[in-house]
Amino acid sequence: MDKVRLGLIGGGPEAFIGQVHRYAAFMDNQYQLVCGVFSRDQQKNHEAGEQLLDNSSRAYSSIHELIEKESALPEAQRVEVIAIVTPNISHFEFASAAIQAGIHVFCEKPATFTLAQSRQLQQQLEQSPVLFGLAHTYIGYPLVQEARQRVIAGELGDIKKVVVEYSQDWLAAKLNNQDSKQGSWRLDPNMAGVSCCVGDIGVHAANLAEFICDMPITRILADLASVEDNRQLDDDAAILVRFKNNARGVLIASQISVGEENNLSIRVYGSKAGLHWQQQQPNSLRIMPGDQPAQEIRTGFDYLSDEAKRFTRTPAGHPEGYIEAFANLYSAFADAVKRARTHSVKHSNANGVPGITEALAGMQFIESSVKSSQSGNQWLALDTFDPGSNK
Amino acid sequence: MDKVRLGLIGGGPEAFIGQVHRYAAFMDNQYQLVCGVFSRDQQKNHEAGEQLLDNSSRAYSSIHELIEKESALPEAQRVEVIAIVTPNISHFEFASAAIQAGIHVFCEKPATFTLAQSRQLQQQLEQSPVLFGLAHTYIGYPLVQEARQRVIAGELGDIKKVVVEYSQDWLAAKLNNQDSKQGSWRLDPNMAGVSCCVGDIGVHAANLAEFICDMPITRILADLASVEDNRQLDDDAAILVRFKNNARGVLIASQISVGEENNLSIRVYGSKAGLHWQQQQPNSLRIMPGDQPAQEIRTGFDYLSDEAKRFTRTPAGHPEGYIEAFANLYSAFADAVKRARTHSVKHSNANGVPGITEALAGMQFIESSVKSSQSGNQWLALDTFDPGSNK
Amino acid sequence: MDKVRLGLIGGGPEAFIGQVHRYAAFMDNQYQLVCGVFSRDQQKNHEAGEQLLDNSSRAYSSIHELIEKESALPEAQRVEVIAIVTPNISHFEFASAAIQAGIHVFCEKPATFTLAQSRQLQQQLEQSPVLFGLAHTYIGYPLVQEARQRVIAGELGDIKKVVVEYSQDWLAAKLNNQDSKQGSWRLDPNMAGVSCCVGDIGVHAANLAEFICDMPITRILADLASVEDNRQLDDDAAILVRFKNNARGVLIASQISVGEENNLSIRVYGSKAGLHWQQQQPNSLRIMPGDQPAQEIRTGFDYLSDEAKRFTRTPAGHPEGYIEAFANLYSAFADAVKRARTHSVKHSNANGVPGITEALAGMQFIESSVKSSQSGNQWLALDTFDPGSNK
Amino acid sequence: MDKVRLGLIGGGPEAFIGQVHRYAAFMDNQYQLVCGVFSRDQQKNHEAGEQLLDNSSRAYSSIHELIEKESALPEAQRVEVIAIVTPNISHFEFASAAIQAGIHVFCEKPATFTLAQSRQLQQQLEQSPVLFGLAHTYIGYPLVQEARQRVIAGELGDIKKVVVEYSQDWLAAKLNNQDSKQGSWRLDPNMAGVSCCVGDIGVHAANLAEFICDMPITRILADLASVEDNRQLDDDAAILVRFKNNARGVLIASQISVGEENNLSIRVYGSKAGLHWQQQQPNSLRIMPGDQPAQEIRTGFDYLSDEAKRFTRTPAGHPEGYIEAFANLYSAFADAVKRARTHSVKHSNANGVPGITEALAGMQFIESSVKSSQSGNQWLALDTFDPGSNK
Repeated sequence: MDKVRLGLIGGGPEAFIGQVHRYAAFMDNQYQLVCGVFSRDQQKNHEAGEQLLDNSSRAYSSIHELIEKESALPEAQRVEVIAIVTPNISHFEFASAAIQAGIHVFCEKPATFTLAQSRQLQQQLEQSPVLFGLAHTYIGYPLVQEARQRVIAGELGDIKKVVVEYSQDWLAAKLNNQDSKQGSWRLDPNMAGVSCCVGDIGVHAANLAEFICDMPITRILADLASVEDNRQLDDDAAILVRFKNNARGVLIASQISVGEENNLSIRVYGSKAGLHWQQQQPNSLRIMPGDQPAQEIRTGFDYLSDEAKRFTRTPAGHPEGYIEAFANLYSAFADAVKRARTHSVKHSNANGVPGITEALAGMQFIESSVKSSQSGNQWLALDTFDPGSNK
Repeated sequence: MDKVRLGLIGGGPEAFIGQVHRYAAFMDNQYQLVCGVFSRDQQKNHEAGEQLLDNSSRAYSSIHELIEKESALPEAQRVEVIAIVTPNISHFEFASAAIQAGIHVFCEKPATFTLAQSRQLQQQLEQSPVLFGLAHTYIGYPLVQEARQRVIAGELGDIKKVVVEYSQDWLAAKLNNQDSKQGSWRLDPNMAGVSCCVGDIGVHAANLAEFICDMPITRILADLASVEDNRQLDDDAAILVRFKNNARGVLIASQISVGEENNLSIRVYGSKAGLHWQQQQPNSLRIMPGDQPAQEIRTGFDYLSDEAKRFTRTPAGHPEGYIEAFANLYSAFADAVKRARTHSVKHSNANGVPGITEALAGMQFIESSVKSSQSGNQWLALDTFDPGSNK
Repeated sequence: MDKVRLGLIGGGPEAFIGQVHRYAAFMDNQYQLVCGVFSRDQQKNHEAGEQLLDNSSRAYSSIHELIEKESALPEAQRVEVIAIVTPNISHFEFASAAIQAGIHVFCEKPATFTLAQSRQLQQQLEQSPVLFGLAHTYIGYPLVQEARQRVIAGELGDIKKVVVEYSQDWLAAKLNNQDSKQGSWRLDPNMAGVSCCVGDIGVHAANLAEFICDMPITRILADLASVEDNRQLDDDAAILVRFKNNARGVLIASQISVGEENNLSIRVYGSKAGLHWQQQQPNSLRIMPGDQPAQEIRTGFDYLSDEAKRFTRTPAGHPEGYIEAFANLYSAFADAVKRARTHSVKHSNANGVPGITEALAGMQFIESSVKSSQSGNQWLALDTFDPGSNK
Repeated sequence: MDKVRLGLIGGGPEAFIGQVHRYAAFMDNQYQLVCGVFSRDQQKNHEAGEQLLDNSSRAYSSIHELIEKESALPEAQRVEVIAIVTPNISHFEFASAAIQAGIHVFCEKPATFTLAQSRQLQQQLEQSPVLFGLAHTYIGYPLVQEARQRVIAGELGDIKKVVVEYSQDWLAAKLNNQDSKQGSWRLDPNMAGVSCCVGDIGVHAANLAEFICDMPITRILADLASVEDNRQLDDDAAILVRFKNNARGVLIASQISVGEENNLSIRVYGSKAGLHWQQQQPNSLRIMPGDQPAQEIRTGFDYLSDEAKRFTRTPAGHPEGYIEAFANLYSAFADAVKRARTHSVKHSNANGVPGITEALAGMQFIESSVKSSQSGNQWLALDTFDPGSNK
């Protein structure tokens, strides 16, 4: 019962994503939340500390205070990992400070404000024995793991075509979230970066496709728009893609598709079979051989790959969801952190949790999408960062 | 019980689509098949006549013989409509001859081999009192009509985004249909025209979107490919589109997506609500207001529009399908033909059946898609032909 | 093109089920409607003749006039089959007269008003060279045939449990159909017989289960009720059943389940696998091995049994529905009738169409259900009539 | 951050249900697992303590040792609640001892081995200021709460009919679980009590129906069987039920239905509308007005009742599942326990968590089902215990 000691950057009590990080960290009883920088508002920060910590004096006013004070604690009490759940603009500042202080980092995506910052993080990580995890939550679903394993095993044959989509409606004008706390920073280029829709959700879709297909996207032609009036950043995107093996893909991302909740779905078509997975029904994965009946793969069965099984908690028929997927990443990261207590580690060795490779790929995808769209929908080549290297 | 006298061009006994035309024509007992040019192979033509006609001597060797011999018959026996179900290359020849002979035409899509031919047909139709129907079958589904009516009534608000798709796998190499009778002409530029995938199914998707949204597509950026080796025509397409009101769209068409049967589906997102319809579950239409529960509209209910009701045969819960949708177009056309016996008509007055406007729009869509793709995925503007003018 | 000459008893233009019989008979162009007794109201009968017949003088005032006048016609014009679509009370009168006149009969279910009448019909049929078909429409779905073949082939192992249901809401008080033409006779013991719900739909569920499981129900414990006030007949039923091999079953039938359209569904669980089919999604059949992924069997595929394929008209992905299922029975019956023109036949030789065996089983099921329910929900043994003997 | 101090009885590391209790208790960070009696095997008990507790010396050899040693601790360290997750035979022993020692109890269902024991617990609870919660997990789903609220608000009108089902296949012979640790005690009358299938899952179905309908089942006619050979207890059940208002119901429970994972589903039909909920798709609730489109109610929306909202953690489209439902009960119970630190409480005041009322109703349902089945499927009247009194 030697729990990993966690600090939280951002994620005060009322923040959606901060709360999700806490559910995910606590579910498997692997983490103890010991400290945090919950808010720049010191009153709120203090209240969060009272509510969330055993010792509220460990609610710090800044990452620098956190590092200073925690470093002064006995090693067995000191924070081991920080989770960064602030707006994009500050990810780099927090991650960089932690890395240099030897604290492991688990970071919300997109990893940084710019690709250049991710490259800097990469350099820092190369020189530091800390782990870096990126919250590409959907990778934590057991059947996403299963889909990847089936592609790798050749069950689909050569990949020919991919259709991946992430559609929501929360930024449709009708729903009036553009002025909410969440909505206003997401649409602010000073807080979110060059993109809203691609940066927030398109990058999840791209990551999901690359993960399942086990190969990088190498070219894109993007068409981004601010569908709703008076926005500085995109709220809708259609992106044509090519994968490393020349497979064709279509990536759709939207935050203004009224009636869509959180519709992340992917279809991969190969020479031998197709597959279909939808985040809103995450416990089913359809495998379609074309000339034989489609099969419905389900979580909780013995026939699944080890990769899927290790991310499953309950027998078949007991639905597992988003929080479990998130907890799977947290728990895998905890195991890596525990190992790092006694072994030397490289950042990429975080037990299958997405890391700096995905950070770089994601930031490049975001910046190139914006560039392609602004240049009249030209094809752009992408560098490849060997996705999957830390799997 | 005065049935419409029908002639069939192509569609011998073993042809899939010819058989479907017959089911559709016969279901409502509105047509009598009186003559045909079933095959260029005279032995097969004769056998088809024996099998399909009351009087096998009315199986003719050519459209010219048909016109000559039928014209010599008493008016009450003479063919009134020909249905053209041959490969694309010969549509124009048959349609043009029939129009000039004063015979109504119900034609498979795409209407002609080239856009120029459709323009010629249009000119002929302007000068001839015959009806022209185009087999955009999916328009015959009651809930496609309902979807359009709801858009027109403003239930979705301003249309913002459309995702329409038509995916199949019958031309995936795995399924080995490329050398079948159907497969070989579809992939032959001398028989099919400039496109296989867009010409065969992409054009259905475009038509469906324009019909439901009640506005034309005005710009496209297309990306076509022959995914399978050694093909002269496209078997996969991704097309970015803009509608007349600037709404954004993504159109996906594929004949190599292994595991997809006949997956035509459309989602339309407006400022007030979204909708979702899938051809494989045609009796449900989902209306999604975003902030209230999605509604499942179903065929057979009193709450439907008159347009949907007139295309429904059975009470709710008795599934109606593809043949019924087809029969709906045939029956609407029969009513128009019967009216034309005693009233002067214009070609565009065919009781809501798609016609020359859709022919022109479709041919333009096909040719422009190929052109955009070949020119390095450039945006091309499309002429508008006032879709819906014959509704 | 030598069509079967059909007469219709009942089924004037506005009757739902009469119209369905006509769609079904016409779709495959195998029948010509030559005569009828459409209504006891002679004005309506005449109008129906005008509307539905080539020769309206063949709209007769009674079955006796029909027999007399048709017998006087040349054999090549004479009616060959009558379809009986009147309320239950008159089925026997019409069927019996036709059988004795040597006219084939295709009858709506339930076959007769009482079991005793069905036994009489059976005796008449044993002595007459006519065919007798019963409109157990759902047997006409291709995947119902497939389900049966898979059971027979042993794919499910020993059948252990069956859950079959037929739920509707059209007689819920809310929907106000109890006083409609259809509703009022269904709820009138003088027109419908001893049961409304079991007689109208429960018997379909029982037939479906026996057909798919290839064995008779041998014992029942029934619990019927008039849920809505002031009804003389049942509108809801729950029936515990045992099959010949002792497999356990639950049969639910309801006409007052608000929100159910025409929810006929069946699940069969065997020692090796389970299966699931739903009439509202008739083109999918789920096979569930328990320890391996469930398979979705679909219409239109090569892997289907011959029995399923012969009832399919279109390639996979083109949904077929209720009218096609009905047409499948009509067409199979037409083939049997054509064969009977030149061969001696037995009534049970109608090409797989349900017949007198199903009539007897059905009437027994109805009467025994009422008796079990009225006797305080006692188990009753059923005679077996060798279901499947005419397959 | 003053957590509730929890002890676990049973549920060593490899026990499925013990692990689920821990996930559920930890997710919201409301509980600290401080002690336990994990196994009667002292070696295993010790190992569990090492693995699960901060202080492994608090892994006790018996409930008596637990009570004795914990009572000696300072109040601020002492266990506050025990969760009982052992086989049925020992529930009473543990619960009774805890109640008498003033320790709150959260108990797996069925509550006890016999109804008589539950009555004894009830008496003890009447005299003790402790809380008693029963793990009717499915009540913890937000849309189960929503369904109940809609029934209470009259949206369905008068309840007329209920179909509730809980089907699994884990005890089908094919799956070979009968000799597993779990399987062997469930099928052993000395461990499980008078019933396997009804006791394990049928009682969940009954509870779900009573909870949603807000009224007790008052009569049953049960038909239980051991479908698989050589079993002393039932593995399949069909039960006809009547509710307090005379509404009719059918309850199906099965552990031998090959292909069913954990198919708990309920349909409630009222005079105004029907509803449908399925545990395997728990984030959707279908409301069916019959004459208007069915609505799909979804978790995470503002339009939900307060009762549903308080059991929801994430925005719409982020699927929540079984563990979250379980955690909802645990967290509600934790709130009640915290309140009990400073307020006098009654056992029934546990913040909506099912309690002794449901224990009594459940045990009566189990025993009466067996009795009805053994007496030749007679109707039996049930006492009512005012379900919902502790809501």
